[in-house]
Amino acid sequence: MSHNEKTLKSEYFFKGYVIKLRKDNVLLENNTEATREVVEHPGGVAVLPLTDDNEVIFVKQFRYPYMKEILELPAGKLDGKGEDPFLCGKRELKEEVGATSDNYTPLGMLYPSPGFCDEIIHLYLAQDLSYGSQNLDEDEFLDVIKIPFDKAYEMVINNEIEDAKTQIAILKAKHILEK
Amino acid sequence: MSHNEKTLKSEYFFKGYVIKLRKDNVLLENNTEATREVVEHPGGVAVLPLTDDNEVIFVKQFRYPYMKEILELPAGKLDGKGEDPFLCGKRELKEEVGATSDNYTPLGMLYPSPGFCDEIIHLYLAQDLSYGSQNLDEDEFLDVIKIPFDKAYEMVINNEIEDAKTQIAILKAKHILEK
Repeated sequence: MSHNEKTLKSEYFFKGYVIKLRKDNVLLENNTEATREVVEHPGGVAVLPLTDDNEVIFVKQFRYPYMKEILELPAGKLDGKGEDPFLCGKRELKEEVGATSDNYTPLGMLYPSPGFCDEIIHLYLAQDLSYGSQNLDEDEFLDVIKIPFDKAYEMVINNEIEDAKTQIAILKAKHILEK
Repeated sequence: MSHNEKTLKSEYFFKGYVIKLRKDNVLLENNTEATREVVEHPGGVAVLPLTDDNEVIFVKQFRYPYMKEILELPAGKLDGKGEDPFLCGKRELKEEVGATSDNYTPLGMLYPSPGFCDEIIHLYLAQDLSYGSQNLDEDEFLDVIKIPFDKAYEMVINNEIEDAKTQIAILKAKHILEK
């Protein structure tokens, strides 16, 4: 059986720099009406940079919604829905870590919170890295931290890494790297 | 080095049934000001129900932000930030799938989108299942689908399962079940 919901009406409550929020009236499959709260996000990319010494390059930064620092892979949001995720990933790796690569492997994508948000995050593994200088935005503060891959994998298993995209990229990379 | 941002001002633009949205003015560590868009969510739970025949019980439902059906683990949001995630997980497993379990294993948690949202999703593996009747909300439409664990794992690796919590729970369960 196939399920469906039809949009009856859309109203925007917020249009910001990162996200937009709208509330829609929808028609359910039993012909009753309901409301749906939707956060629109342009989508994002995360890159798992793996050094020749088998270390993962993380960034540690303050995440305001949680009011604490967390460990994540280098990542960023697309410049609008039209940007090629792969080009965005290359840019963010250069900006945040100062690294470039000619050896990328796609690690799929994820829907972070499909109940209310339309964001799609694309994942890549980057190997054979070359290093230059970071190029952070003016209001971007982060530390670059290298952790051996096996240790990073154990940190995911032991729930020491909270970020969803970082967990998925490391768990999937483990599968690929072991083959 | 430790990074930090201080709240100067908060303004709510939306307070809905599922989420709230506010825009804050913050003071950065270089003493400049910036804005932060924050979606507040009560948090959620997902349960990986594993049958005695080593099948994962999924739910397939229409997700309005993506305008399509996707495959997910049974899941739900907390009744406010105070609800015990484990009790919420047991309730959602019963409501969506009709199953109960006395054998739960925690699979950690995830931050779905730490750039703008404060949601935390807790994960559990449920084994030794007993079966009763579903108890869906009036406006909840979903199909229950069983898939062998090894096939479900392959689907994650092959990017056929988009949902972040579902990917992480299956990848972490693989690690635990293989031990």
